[in-house]
Amino acid sequence: MRIGIVGAGQLGRMLALAGRGLGQEFVFLDPAKKPCAAALGEHWCAPFADVEQLTHLAAYCDVVTYEFENVPAAGLDALDRGDARVYPPPRALSISQDRRREKSFFESLNIAVAPWAAADSAASLAAALEQLDRPLIVKTATLGYDGKGQRRLETRCDAASLFAELGEVALCVEAVVDFDYEVSIIGTRTAAGEITTYPLCRNKHVGGILNQTCVDPDRHELQATADNMFERVAQALDYVGTLTIELFVCGKQLVANEFAPRVHNSGHWTLGGAETCQFENHLRAVSGLPLGPTMPLGWIGMQNFVGALPSAEAALRAGASNFQNYQKTPRPGRKVGHATVVADSASSRESVLNRLNALPGWQV
Amino acid sequence: MRIGIVGAGQLGRMLALAGRGLGQEFVFLDPAKKPCAAALGEHWCAPFADVEQLTHLAAYCDVVTYEFENVPAAGLDALDRGDARVYPPPRALSISQDRRREKSFFESLNIAVAPWAAADSAASLAAALEQLDRPLIVKTATLGYDGKGQRRLETRCDAASLFAELGEVALCVEAVVDFDYEVSIIGTRTAAGEITTYPLCRNKHVGGILNQTCVDPDRHELQATADNMFERVAQALDYVGTLTIELFVCGKQLVANEFAPRVHNSGHWTLGGAETCQFENHLRAVSGLPLGPTMPLGWIGMQNFVGALPSAEAALRAGASNFQNYQKTPRPGRKVGHATVVADSASSRESVLNRLNALPGWQV
Repeated sequence: MRIGIVGAGQLGRMLALAGRGLGQEFVFLDPAKKPCAAALGEHWCAPFADVEQLTHLAAYCDVVTYEFENVPAAGLDALDRGDARVYPPPRALSISQDRRREKSFFESLNIAVAPWAAADSAASLAAALEQLDRPLIVKTATLGYDGKGQRRLETRCDAASLFAELGEVALCVEAVVDFDYEVSIIGTRTAAGEITTYPLCRNKHVGGILNQTCVDPDRHELQATADNMFERVAQALDYVGTLTIELFVCGKQLVANEFAPRVHNSGHWTLGGAETCQFENHLRAVSGLPLGPTMPLGWIGMQNFVGALPSAEAALRAGASNFQNYQKTPRPGRKVGHATVVADSASSRESVLNRLNALPGWQV
Repeated sequence: MRIGIVGAGQLGRMLALAGRGLGQEFVFLDPAKKPCAAALGEHWCAPFADVEQLTHLAAYCDVVTYEFENVPAAGLDALDRGDARVYPPPRALSISQDRRREKSFFESLNIAVAPWAAADSAASLAAALEQLDRPLIVKTATLGYDGKGQRRLETRCDAASLFAELGEVALCVEAVVDFDYEVSIIGTRTAAGEITTYPLCRNKHVGGILNQTCVDPDRHELQATADNMFERVAQALDYVGTLTIELFVCGKQLVANEFAPRVHNSGHWTLGGAETCQFENHLRAVSGLPLGPTMPLGWIGMQNFVGALPSAEAALRAGASNFQNYQKTPRPGRKVGHATVVADSASSRESVLNRLNALPGWQV
């Protein structure tokens, strides 16, 4: 089976490594000259909005999927047209690209989100800032990720100058949720409606970028609530593939932050830390195969390496069980690799994560 | 790190899939036009005895290893010359290529082997047939594998015609061991002398080719004996990489059959069935990295597919956790894929293996 992937970064790379064993072949479309997944399949060097190439990709492959979230509307339309199988459905991508549509979508499913308001002008921004309690975060409605395109407001500010500063674009103003910690619910749905989820993982960010993820073998008390949210979202989207929802834990309540219609950084622990990784389950779903088991192999931790990569030797000697070098040129803020820890207790996981976190490898 | 691999079959393919995550790149030397590992690295199409290309490979790569056992002597000499790092040491390969040197080597380490005798002529074959109790197996000393180049003798026979029939080559005559079952001890040694072994796996052959392998989470009563043999062999060879010794279990005794200086079919269960697979541990050893843990994730079974390959869907629906399609053109007797089962009991493993074994996929 030939699978087309829009985007050829580390997610595409790990998808290909998982799918090769299943006998799958990969074609990547990515405008970069030498993206890090290119060595694992064919690489078509073209912009994400190149309608002709995207249409060609859909015709050339048995199924098309994506690992890059910001495929422009024209590209999405091209994928959505005709008989091609495109999974996950482009509608999921298009909702996730707009924070305001995303929040309305969660609300339509009775899933709690932070209080929010839309703003499309200095005047409506001023009204939103008035309406919501501080602290607030003002985000561009589209194209923000890893903390980019955001302003946190603790006190009053001038709406007109803020609107200008953020580029006079559509905005989403959100009340800051007073959460205990952030978790992700990651799972996979097949075209036949089979759903399997991974255990909730707890995420720690540094400078707006994921730093560490932890998963325990004990069932989280909010797992059933999260699974239920996952099912509602996946079914409403008629979703096929791996899907991630980021959630805030507030006492016994879960508040949805955002969803990503793809494999996700907070699911990298599954590579070496679960029986079937998120990448393989995504490929199984989009290619019509049954899903694999998702249980963790112990007390699992994942350490991201951003901006700089320690050597495989240093990471393994620090106690990592699995090390992934994305073979990307390091630069500040760029994710260049990660390591997974499989420990037999929470404390031994913590000490390995502390050692990994202290290795040279964090430049936000 | 750039790793040269002599041979580009399924073993090379699975090595590359394991090593890519570590940031390793691969160059395969193989005379086949489109060997199945070629898509995962550079492919140099050259005979295994091409001294010039092998020398070039050793100069071009940081380390050279092999996945093919029958590299001719001229090729081995080329690899062994100069400053290149070649792991495992070519001496290990050269001993394993000759059943008679291999048996003498085991004996020199006080490791039991079946009663045997060398024969290089019709007369010495007659003497050997006289000396050893029946049943016997007469094997060519070199170039036999998967039951090829062997004759089993239950009764008397004419030595002269048998010698002619086997090609008038160096022979090894062995008494047939009355064993309970066959096991493999697979392990890895680093250049620094660190050794780790996998739990003993039990092998079942059909038509001279491995059909199934099973590994239990309970420690085998002969594990310590096998580990001790492994250590003696690995140290005597100053071994670096993954090494496999096939052993006969005879009551409480282990009798060595042969060793393979490489990752091995009976170790395929480690891919998806152990925390670190044999392929990754081999690469870690040859590239100077610390070894990973080897414990099984449950009651593990491996089903080989020979001559014909079921679909990934059929294998996964039958209960396999991991499926490997080597992307080779099927023909009788050819290994084209395998599946791994991770079960929570011996009986559930057995029923999945029975289902996998009944899929279309066995043509010896």
